[in-house]
Amino acid sequence: MAQTKIKPRLAKGFRDFLPADMLKRQYVINTVERVFQMYGYEPLQTPVLEMRETLYGKYGEDAEQLIYSAQHGRSKSDEVAMRYDLTVPLSRVVGQYENDLNFPFRRYQISPVWRGERPQKGRYREFYQCDADIVGVAGMEADAEIISVMHSVYVQLNLPKPIIKINNRKLLTGMGVYSGVPDSQLPDLYRSVDKFDKIGADGVEKELVERGIPAEAVRRMMELIQSHEPGVKNLDVVEEAMGHIEAAQKGIQELREMASHLANLNVPEEAYAFDFTMVRGLSYYTGPIFETTIEEPNLGSITGGGRYDELIGLFRRESLPTVGMSLGIERIIDIMTELDLFPAQVSATVVDVLVTVFDDDTQAASANLAATLRAAGIRTELYMSDSKFKLGKQFSYADKKGIPLVATLGPEEIAQGKVGLKRLRDGEEATVSIADAAAKITEMVNI
Amino acid sequence: MAQTKIKPRLAKGFRDFLPADMLKRQYVINTVERVFQMYGYEPLQTPVLEMRETLYGKYGEDAEQLIYSAQHGRSKSDEVAMRYDLTVPLSRVVGQYENDLNFPFRRYQISPVWRGERPQKGRYREFYQCDADIVGVAGMEADAEIISVMHSVYVQLNLPKPIIKINNRKLLTGMGVYSGVPDSQLPDLYRSVDKFDKIGADGVEKELVERGIPAEAVRRMMELIQSHEPGVKNLDVVEEAMGHIEAAQKGIQELREMASHLANLNVPEEAYAFDFTMVRGLSYYTGPIFETTIEEPNLGSITGGGRYDELIGLFRRESLPTVGMSLGIERIIDIMTELDLFPAQVSATVVDVLVTVFDDDTQAASANLAATLRAAGIRTELYMSDSKFKLGKQFSYADKKGIPLVATLGPEEIAQGKVGLKRLRDGEEATVSIADAAAKITEMVNI
Repeated sequence: MAQTKIKPRLAKGFRDFLPADMLKRQYVINTVERVFQMYGYEPLQTPVLEMRETLYGKYGEDAEQLIYSAQHGRSKSDEVAMRYDLTVPLSRVVGQYENDLNFPFRRYQISPVWRGERPQKGRYREFYQCDADIVGVAGMEADAEIISVMHSVYVQLNLPKPIIKINNRKLLTGMGVYSGVPDSQLPDLYRSVDKFDKIGADGVEKELVERGIPAEAVRRMMELIQSHEPGVKNLDVVEEAMGHIEAAQKGIQELREMASHLANLNVPEEAYAFDFTMVRGLSYYTGPIFETTIEEPNLGSITGGGRYDELIGLFRRESLPTVGMSLGIERIIDIMTELDLFPAQVSATVVDVLVTVFDDDTQAASANLAATLRAAGIRTELYMSDSKFKLGKQFSYADKKGIPLVATLGPEEIAQGKVGLKRLRDGEEATVSIADAAAKITEMVNI
Repeated sequence: MAQTKIKPRLAKGFRDFLPADMLKRQYVINTVERVFQMYGYEPLQTPVLEMRETLYGKYGEDAEQLIYSAQHGRSKSDEVAMRYDLTVPLSRVVGQYENDLNFPFRRYQISPVWRGERPQKGRYREFYQCDADIVGVAGMEADAEIISVMHSVYVQLNLPKPIIKINNRKLLTGMGVYSGVPDSQLPDLYRSVDKFDKIGADGVEKELVERGIPAEAVRRMMELIQSHEPGVKNLDVVEEAMGHIEAAQKGIQELREMASHLANLNVPEEAYAFDFTMVRGLSYYTGPIFETTIEEPNLGSITGGGRYDELIGLFRRESLPTVGMSLGIERIIDIMTELDLFPAQVSATVVDVLVTVFDDDTQAASANLAATLRAAGIRTELYMSDSKFKLGKQFSYADKKGIPLVATLGPEEIAQGKVGLKRLRDGEEATVSIADAAAKITEMVNI
């Protein structure tokens, strides 16, 4: 093993999570997973490496530049690439195993994805997505269920006033008709409106006029899409203006149905808003689209989603109507950390009790106590050191790690078959028999 | 979205896990994780993509050919590569964050790794490793703890008679002296002995003689390493033969200490065996080594590990003594599936109850019942269909998915504020008020 030293480091855009951070992440992921399962979504796992042909041609040319391809050894075959999201792999799975799946197929997947973007604050090259999708239902009850799942996650995580913005791609098509934009320029229209949050109404207007869309039409549209009446009243506004346009009428009708299903599912009206300025970047959406933002702290959208009825058709004779969402836990964790929203039980350590060692002669007794406590379900660390055992050092170690309880077992305790317990937070002490130790520890840790 | 169809498929050596398989995997992973935490091991997560220089030069030249490198876009920079195991990333982390870690540092990581091996039955290019390691303890209590963790995992998973084989690299060095093999030929000796399970004693003997080692010495050594007295008695055998050789004496002494620590931790003697034919491939081991095999069904080793006191020194001024193990859940899942060892609660679905829909007019009531049940902690699927609702079809759907309970809510039940429940396994039925439904469902699902 005689080798030159290597500077330990990571490439830009990649992160390690040390235990205290991991325990926070696990809390968020476990909460999300519990909610997904509560609605009957089942776990699916696809490999990180997909066939290149599965990924390419799905995300647009700019995105394609960000996909990592992978190869090993001398062959340098370019056959596989690292997944860019969890939606395209789901579509492949539905095409590949259609006889093994029950439809409607509700699945979730919580996994990392890779994008070679320029690293910056809050943007990483490896990050987790938590996706829930329902395949095989065209009706709006499916879209409403996805929104209800999102809402339940926010409630369970205690996030501050998230607003789920809802729009419909069909309404956006209607907007094009309404403002006299030809079909060929619709992508330009979407792109400009998508910048609304960044460049404001004036900016969007200026861009669209520069693209040759009459100023009067643009102004009319911009006024309309900025309407923000509460709940379904906002649908009344656009219906009055665009009810005569077929695509718009269909889009409005879908959102009305969705609102009614949301009420059945006990999703409160103040949890969502119909927002006609919200577009979403991905090209594969065909119906309702969703996005959640939190105003304070403003860290961008924490969840996106929508209906994409055509994507699965790329992997299957006939497509299947599908709606889903992707929850970005990186930003959620940032928000929860900033606002200190983690409950007290999310500790810096998994350990309930540190069993200390008095000296070499009593090490065996301490080890045996640790084994006894573990058998009773107590998460127990046995203190270890290659130098002389010192109790003070062991207490400092427990304190530094955030271990709530310390067990002491000196010659005297051993002679009496007892163990000393001390809670570090408040100094509370107890001496109990070995047989009663597990119950007492449970009591002292939970209080 | 007008595009040519793509055949949905995966590259060789990669797998999807559909929900029923995923639930089995999650059961195994959750059990392993619970045991790791029970011993105070903390979660660590490193990225999939490491700097190339971190991975290369650690596994030997043959293994290096199997490492996947990754690149994106036009740059084709070869800076990063996909992790090959979890041990080298741990060593990097210890070097990189030594001031942020508490020592002894116990960490676990349960993550996939990638190796471009030739795919074959039971060997995949993407597979999970479950690693637990303790950094910073040279004493044998650490090695014993790692073995105790392994043993607890096997007990919790109810694996049939796993035998943890234990040897010591220092003893192997002693074997070289004992049989007159020069230091330069020691790697040849290890390589031949490593094939013992495959080519037998005669095969090993033949290879070693061909390599120029005197036949008499080889025979003497082969007889010795095949000794299989129970427990520490097997140490007595080698001590009598090799006690005068310093490396061997040190190795034997370590294993004696380990046996004594194992007894303190309540690991029964029949759970392990000192086996001097077991070598393990990796070059970085420096002390005790472990490997677990199950005889029936014989699927090779399910866990490997050992002490590697020098590896961290590649990333840090001074190395730290470290011992750990890696558990292969792919083989464990194969064994558990073959022997039907999954407990009854590992179901094919996450769903406790399917709420059926009588017709379009009652859909709202069914949706609302589903929301009520979820709020009470019942994992509830709401039946959805774009065609006409038929109860028979909904019952078949529940049955096919393995959902234990079905809730019915027709106009009559709605009028009375009641809900019908039916357990599919035995046809047991009940009619209860909506308020009592969650409690009754819990009762009927758990019985």
